[in-house]
Amino acid sequence: MGTKKYVYAFEQGDGKNKELLGGKGANLCEMTRIGLPVPPGFVITTESCLSYLDQKKKGLQAEVVKQIREAMAELEKKTGKGFGDAKNPLLVSVRSGAAMSMPGMMDTILNLGLNEDTVKGMIRLTKNERFVYDLYRRLIQLFCSISLGMEDDNFDHIFNKIKDKYKAKEDVDLDAKALKETCDQFLEIVKKKTGKPFPQDPYEQLELAVEAVFKSWTGKRAVDYRREFKITKEMADGTAVNICTMVFGNMGDHSATGVAFTRDPATGDNRFFGEYMINAQGEDVVAGIRTPEPIRQLRKEMPDVYPELEELRHTLENHYREVQDLEFTIEKGKLYCLQTRNAKMNASAFIKTSIDMVNEGLISEEEALLRVQPDMLAQLLYPQLDPNAKVEVLAQGLPASPGAASGKIVFDADRAESKAKLGEKVILLREETKPEDIHGFFAAQGILTSRGGKTSHAAVVARSMGKPCVSGCEAIEITPSSKEAVISGVSLREGDMITIDGTTGNIYQGKVPTIEPEFVEDLLVLLEWADEISDLQIMANADTPDAVSKAKKYGAMGIGLCRTERMFNQPKRLPIVQEMILAETTEERQAALDRLLPFQREDLKEIFRIMDGYPVTIRLLDPPIHEFLPSADELVQEIDHLKELRNTVGGMAALPDTLKMLDPELHERYAANLEAITQGLEELKSEHLTVDLIESKEIMLKKVRTLSETNPMLGHRGVRLGITYPEIYAMQIRAILEAAAEHIGDGGKIIPEIMVPQVCTLEELKWVHGFVVDIQKGVEKKFKIKVPYEFGTMVEVVRACMRAGRLAELAEFISFGTNDLTQATFSFSREDAETKFLPLYEESGILQDNPFEVLDIKGVGRLMMITMEWARKTRKDMKVGICGEQGGHPDAIRFCHYIDMTYVSCSPPRVPIARLAAAHAKLKEGEYSIV
Amino acid sequence: MGTKKYVYAFEQGDGKNKELLGGKGANLCEMTRIGLPVPPGFVITTESCLSYLDQKKKGLQAEVVKQIREAMAELEKKTGKGFGDAKNPLLVSVRSGAAMSMPGMMDTILNLGLNEDTVKGMIRLTKNERFVYDLYRRLIQLFCSISLGMEDDNFDHIFNKIKDKYKAKEDVDLDAKALKETCDQFLEIVKKKTGKPFPQDPYEQLELAVEAVFKSWTGKRAVDYRREFKITKEMADGTAVNICTMVFGNMGDHSATGVAFTRDPATGDNRFFGEYMINAQGEDVVAGIRTPEPIRQLRKEMPDVYPELEELRHTLENHYREVQDLEFTIEKGKLYCLQTRNAKMNASAFIKTSIDMVNEGLISEEEALLRVQPDMLAQLLYPQLDPNAKVEVLAQGLPASPGAASGKIVFDADRAESKAKLGEKVILLREETKPEDIHGFFAAQGILTSRGGKTSHAAVVARSMGKPCVSGCEAIEITPSSKEAVISGVSLREGDMITIDGTTGNIYQGKVPTIEPEFVEDLLVLLEWADEISDLQIMANADTPDAVSKAKKYGAMGIGLCRTERMFNQPKRLPIVQEMILAETTEERQAALDRLLPFQREDLKEIFRIMDGYPVTIRLLDPPIHEFLPSADELVQEIDHLKELRNTVGGMAALPDTLKMLDPELHERYAANLEAITQGLEELKSEHLTVDLIESKEIMLKKVRTLSETNPMLGHRGVRLGITYPEIYAMQIRAILEAAAEHIGDGGKIIPEIMVPQVCTLEELKWVHGFVVDIQKGVEKKFKIKVPYEFGTMVEVVRACMRAGRLAELAEFISFGTNDLTQATFSFSREDAETKFLPLYEESGILQDNPFEVLDIKGVGRLMMITMEWARKTRKDMKVGICGEQGGHPDAIRFCHYIDMTYVSCSPPRVPIARLAAAHAKLKEGEYSIV
Repeated sequence: MGTKKYVYAFEQGDGKNKELLGGKGANLCEMTRIGLPVPPGFVITTESCLSYLDQKKKGLQAEVVKQIREAMAELEKKTGKGFGDAKNPLLVSVRSGAAMSMPGMMDTILNLGLNEDTVKGMIRLTKNERFVYDLYRRLIQLFCSISLGMEDDNFDHIFNKIKDKYKAKEDVDLDAKALKETCDQFLEIVKKKTGKPFPQDPYEQLELAVEAVFKSWTGKRAVDYRREFKITKEMADGTAVNICTMVFGNMGDHSATGVAFTRDPATGDNRFFGEYMINAQGEDVVAGIRTPEPIRQLRKEMPDVYPELEELRHTLENHYREVQDLEFTIEKGKLYCLQTRNAKMNASAFIKTSIDMVNEGLISEEEALLRVQPDMLAQLLYPQLDPNAKVEVLAQGLPASPGAASGKIVFDADRAESKAKLGEKVILLREETKPEDIHGFFAAQGILTSRGGKTSHAAVVARSMGKPCVSGCEAIEITPSSKEAVISGVSLREGDMITIDGTTGNIYQGKVPTIEPEFVEDLLVLLEWADEISDLQIMANADTPDAVSKAKKYGAMGIGLCRTERMFNQPKRLPIVQEMILAETTEERQAALDRLLPFQREDLKEIFRIMDGYPVTIRLLDPPIHEFLPSADELVQEIDHLKELRNTVGGMAALPDTLKMLDPELHERYAANLEAITQGLEELKSEHLTVDLIESKEIMLKKVRTLSETNPMLGHRGVRLGITYPEIYAMQIRAILEAAAEHIGDGGKIIPEIMVPQVCTLEELKWVHGFVVDIQKGVEKKFKIKVPYEFGTMVEVVRACMRAGRLAELAEFISFGTNDLTQATFSFSREDAETKFLPLYEESGILQDNPFEVLDIKGVGRLMMITMEWARKTRKDMKVGICGEQGGHPDAIRFCHYIDMTYVSCSPPRVPIARLAAAHAKLKEGEYSIV
Repeated sequence: MGTKKYVYAFEQGDGKNKELLGGKGANLCEMTRIGLPVPPGFVITTESCLSYLDQKKKGLQAEVVKQIREAMAELEKKTGKGFGDAKNPLLVSVRSGAAMSMPGMMDTILNLGLNEDTVKGMIRLTKNERFVYDLYRRLIQLFCSISLGMEDDNFDHIFNKIKDKYKAKEDVDLDAKALKETCDQFLEIVKKKTGKPFPQDPYEQLELAVEAVFKSWTGKRAVDYRREFKITKEMADGTAVNICTMVFGNMGDHSATGVAFTRDPATGDNRFFGEYMINAQGEDVVAGIRTPEPIRQLRKEMPDVYPELEELRHTLENHYREVQDLEFTIEKGKLYCLQTRNAKMNASAFIKTSIDMVNEGLISEEEALLRVQPDMLAQLLYPQLDPNAKVEVLAQGLPASPGAASGKIVFDADRAESKAKLGEKVILLREETKPEDIHGFFAAQGILTSRGGKTSHAAVVARSMGKPCVSGCEAIEITPSSKEAVISGVSLREGDMITIDGTTGNIYQGKVPTIEPEFVEDLLVLLEWADEISDLQIMANADTPDAVSKAKKYGAMGIGLCRTERMFNQPKRLPIVQEMILAETTEERQAALDRLLPFQREDLKEIFRIMDGYPVTIRLLDPPIHEFLPSADELVQEIDHLKELRNTVGGMAALPDTLKMLDPELHERYAANLEAITQGLEELKSEHLTVDLIESKEIMLKKVRTLSETNPMLGHRGVRLGITYPEIYAMQIRAILEAAAEHIGDGGKIIPEIMVPQVCTLEELKWVHGFVVDIQKGVEKKFKIKVPYEFGTMVEVVRACMRAGRLAELAEFISFGTNDLTQATFSFSREDAETKFLPLYEESGILQDNPFEVLDIKGVGRLMMITMEWARKTRKDMKVGICGEQGGHPDAIRFCHYIDMTYVSCSPPRVPIARLAAAHAKLKEGEYSIV
């Protein structure tokens, strides 16, 4: 049985053995082993720490001390310097390092080995007295507080007095003399407080420092940290100590220091990129006192060293197979690599380098895919605020639809439209939006509302259009009548410029520069690789031909959710929809529906044309119909206003007669004008302020009140509407099948998928299916052509989950509507929850995430799993998808893949993110499990 | 191989063999076999029918004819009459009868065997020419239309003409002559239409009739019926034919006819009860031409026959072991029993006879229990409208709380209280009620509202108090300011009398007599038997000491749901609750809560005292707090009104001065009065119309608007409130534990069960549990006594079902809140669903029941089963209950028993029903299964 090995030189350690060497130590060994010019050093193992802590007596064990001394002798040999040698002093750093990164343990001590003698030697070598005394005073303070347990106050007090004396504001204002004075006083206080002088023996310094690191493992901060983050003994036990040679880039003109990237981090181009300074140390580069040189200059200035640096670059990339961000120092012509880590890059550069590395044979396609985080793609898909712009946030609302936009404020949709026609960029600012504002959405750059959550009309419509939206910003008070708003105390009027960031919810005064997204070529390559790997199909939620085109562009493999009611939301169509709702008889309703049919059919035909050959799932009318009418409050105001106007106009009609009586002469003089005015008013009255108009508004108000609901989320909607007003669904089904017939007649391919919302029992499905069968027969007869279709249901009502086995008897596909399903599962109304208690729930950790943003796998997900199990028991090959908002998020996609779903459907701009996430889900399926 | 037996005399047939003999035939055989004096007869088997239908050729098979003739010969022997014998003619009836009762097959033909000769014989025997010709003309028409396929029109035409001729309005107005003329003309038309005379040979009549019955099995009506009701061949194949001797009670003074009950159906007393008429037939008794005699009179009038009737009575009860309702005829001193069936009785008589029969050893306790349908008990628990009262329904609302009540209309709670103090009975009529109306509920006999469903405030509170309530009666228009209402066009003012029936939802003008319930002694006996058998515990939902007392009286085995917020709803407490809600700071809120604490503690202490030793489950605050404030609309009106009044009063202050200026003399005269008035007004203004008051209302309005929610059902309530306003739950927990401490200190026994509502994740439970633990420590210290408790959760949020395994780590019991759980499972808001689409859903069969009334076992029930499985996986002995409204309904109770729940909790008056239902569930558990 030989002696236990407590100390490993960097070149001896096993780069994987973090348990023994700690994370940092293992990493240093790894770098050394692959031939990087790491400054020489060694690791004292975690076992040393544990046996140190185990023993009763004080002090390091003799064997450990012995091995440290041997390792130091080795270091001296390698560096040609001497530990404590005044002529060519070897200085070292001491760092802790457990198996897991763990803040709260001992800090780094640098420059161990400095004492009265070596300080002088260093001054000779660096010719920089100020630099050396600065190192020394830091060493004294740090060493004494850490290793000897002295209070920092002792030193701070002295140092502040020195600064006062030399009228120095900052540390850097002190010169060599002042710093030397500081060192002298520090040494005095150490002697006074500890009864012993500051250890001049470098080995004594070193051994005390190692002991201090060992002890810090059981210090309060470290113990608390491990308890807080539940770090068990199995995960990390004891800390290692890393001893590393100090190197200096300010040792003369053949010394330098710099930072570099192995490729250009801004563009991703495969060229060496970085900067350096001759005769400087890292801090000088950061401080910006001199301007650093570009790295290519080094080739000329140090032709002997530069090739080593180039080699370093290649070694790093070959080993780490990612672009590296490295720090290097050249000490008297010798290159050292002090640190290397994966370079931070913007998304397009990151994607470019990943693809390049595949082409260079460095990494596989799978590795390239896994390297790019799906959410990173958002940068390439939405406009972003310029990160360099220095701006102050005016207010914050809910981040309702991502992307940034600037524009002039308008307070209504009509103004948005008219201003946009003049070429102006506008932001539509409303308390909340309604379907009748839809032309304002088309016209505006972005939408801002003072009320409503992330599922408010504004949010949902904006997302579906891919326009930025900030909703529910309660700091905004709007007075629409005077076209004014006050945002966090700042008054704004129509035409004032603002900027909104729908990714963060922030609102800014004025125009903040934005960066437009570019759908880069490299991304297309990456996503094609992704599609080849994924099992999940990625579909899009898109309701209009425009949105469908966009979805196609983003690579959607079909439309997973086409909400027919969105086709109603257009200025020409909405009045017909309202007519349909206000109809007193079935005949009147049918007449309105007959006029809606062509709109719906033509839109669908166009969608089928764009998505020719791909699946298109069309959902029948879902929202409660009162959503298509103005609110009761609005109508009451409008009616009051109209009545008042009418009275006023009526009163003014008497004006000429009154004037005639009071002052005939005056009347005579203005008779013609008066006549013109009163005639104008009469026209106004008879044309715009008619009794009929007021009455029609009153009828609408009555209807709105009749239709109003206590809990609209749980109300008269979806298939419930379809069953109470069968003619509405009949029209929609006809539109779908006729559009398909025409498309097929034109030589196209389509099997429309008809989807029924809010279903809770098989009987509802049967009812609608009966309609479909009848109408299909009629359409096939009329068009003399076969019109195939698939029939399916949304699953967004919990009871549908419980009855999935039965629903599957008729439903050929199901699609989870996780927005509604989440509301029903939690009994949270999103609008109420997000303003009233969800923030507190998240803050206090009662819920880890907002379930409307992050799919709740433990609750909603569990329900989905049960549902799928039962559904596929009845229909083995049941096509199952998800079309709620969470469907486009990587976590949800991972879960959907895991439970063997067929597809996910999300808003068009999220399609690329989802495609990548689906590939990740497949590649990492082995690691996944559900708690 | 002998000849097949096609014909069974009643005494030969196996009373169980319905397949062969048909249901009716088997029954006649059964009656005969147990010795009842059924008129003799026989059954022609279903096999005869099938082989008749199988053969190609027409006519009955020879063997069947032969066996019929033999059976007829036997009949002649038994009755001493001859088939076709003019002196003493035997007449028979012919009836179809398959294995299952099946309307749509051949009707009965009576009096077969009548012809020109036997008619005369019958006239001689009955001395009633009119009677015999009436029989004959009926036979001709029925026989010819059924057996010979003649159109009824032929006969109807003749008969109408005869009636015209004799100026007879009705059939009974025709005398013997007219009826004879009818018969003659009928016989003529038969001959003319069929080419043959009406068959005078009785055997020809009989065989044609039997054939007609056989054929009717494959007739369109019968085939359609079987298809419609899915009656397969296995269930019934072919029809039997029943031939039965006709007997007549009008054969002279030693003949009679009557009906009787084996016990008194009104009281349940064990005495023979019924009436009869000498020399009459059944129709005479019904027609009421003569007054029938009570049955005891028969003992005197026919002492020879009466003992037979008494014997019949005992035979029937001994065999059927239920009170029988029988029809009998005495033909010339011979008693016949024509029919017997279980007697219909009111609930108390039914229970009395059932218990008596147990005591008499006729039936077992289990049989007695099973005989009483739980819902029948409602008659004994709620006041009922007198079924004899002839009244017209004025309008109908929703049957929101069972029972009937009359009273004078009042339009607000204060009036209800003041009138009730004067001893008047009042009905509180409101558009809808609010917590602040609670004193009106106490004062009123019943509650009537024009808005709101069966879960509206009015409905829920009334049910919990056991007071009748009709809610959401949309036919009512109320003008509270003028204390007037119009109900279905009838104007009613305060003080007008109305009656409401909360069991049906009907509203009546004036006072309708009601029958008060009596909690009969027998019921107590029955329920004790039930309790011995049941596995399920029956608890009550009760929130106040009064309601808890009632629950105890009804036999509740504990309180399953005590809603703490109900204790807030009292005139003295509500203002403090409002203060608590309006508090701007935590300190203000705490101050209000400190004042609420004693109320809550004292109520709970009283409840613990009443239920000493029984479990009491107390639910922490559940409803959204805006429910304790007036509605925004109400406040706006009130503020406008106050402001207007203030202005008016202000204006009138100037009155004296104005008058003085205009007419000093008049002013002088009324100066004193004016001064008094203006001073009065000033006082009014300064006391009741203060600016402060208006401001406080405005502050409340603002708060109401802040608290308003889009979907209150899914809003800021339950534990979500408890977490956002921790001081509220802290107060309630303290009240519970202090009340328990005091009760225990007084020598009582209680382990309060603290229940948290609206839970969706374990973290919420942990949070509340932390509070409980802390407060318990404090209370135990303060009272120097151990205060045990149990901690549990409502399960009414779907996510709680999904997380049941985790919740069970902390929850010692769970209680399903099926009201909310049903809403969440269906995504139906009850208030909206019941007015907007549920009626259509039920009508069209999309849902079989309203899931808010009948527990939805397939959906909600399935969820409950999953929940229990997961919960008991974690905590094997988990106590599980249900406290939703459906909990008191027998179907739900059956399900709860089946899935091994621990208890059900329902409103106090439903406790007896639930106790009985629980026994039924246990006794019938073998028959139960879930589809």
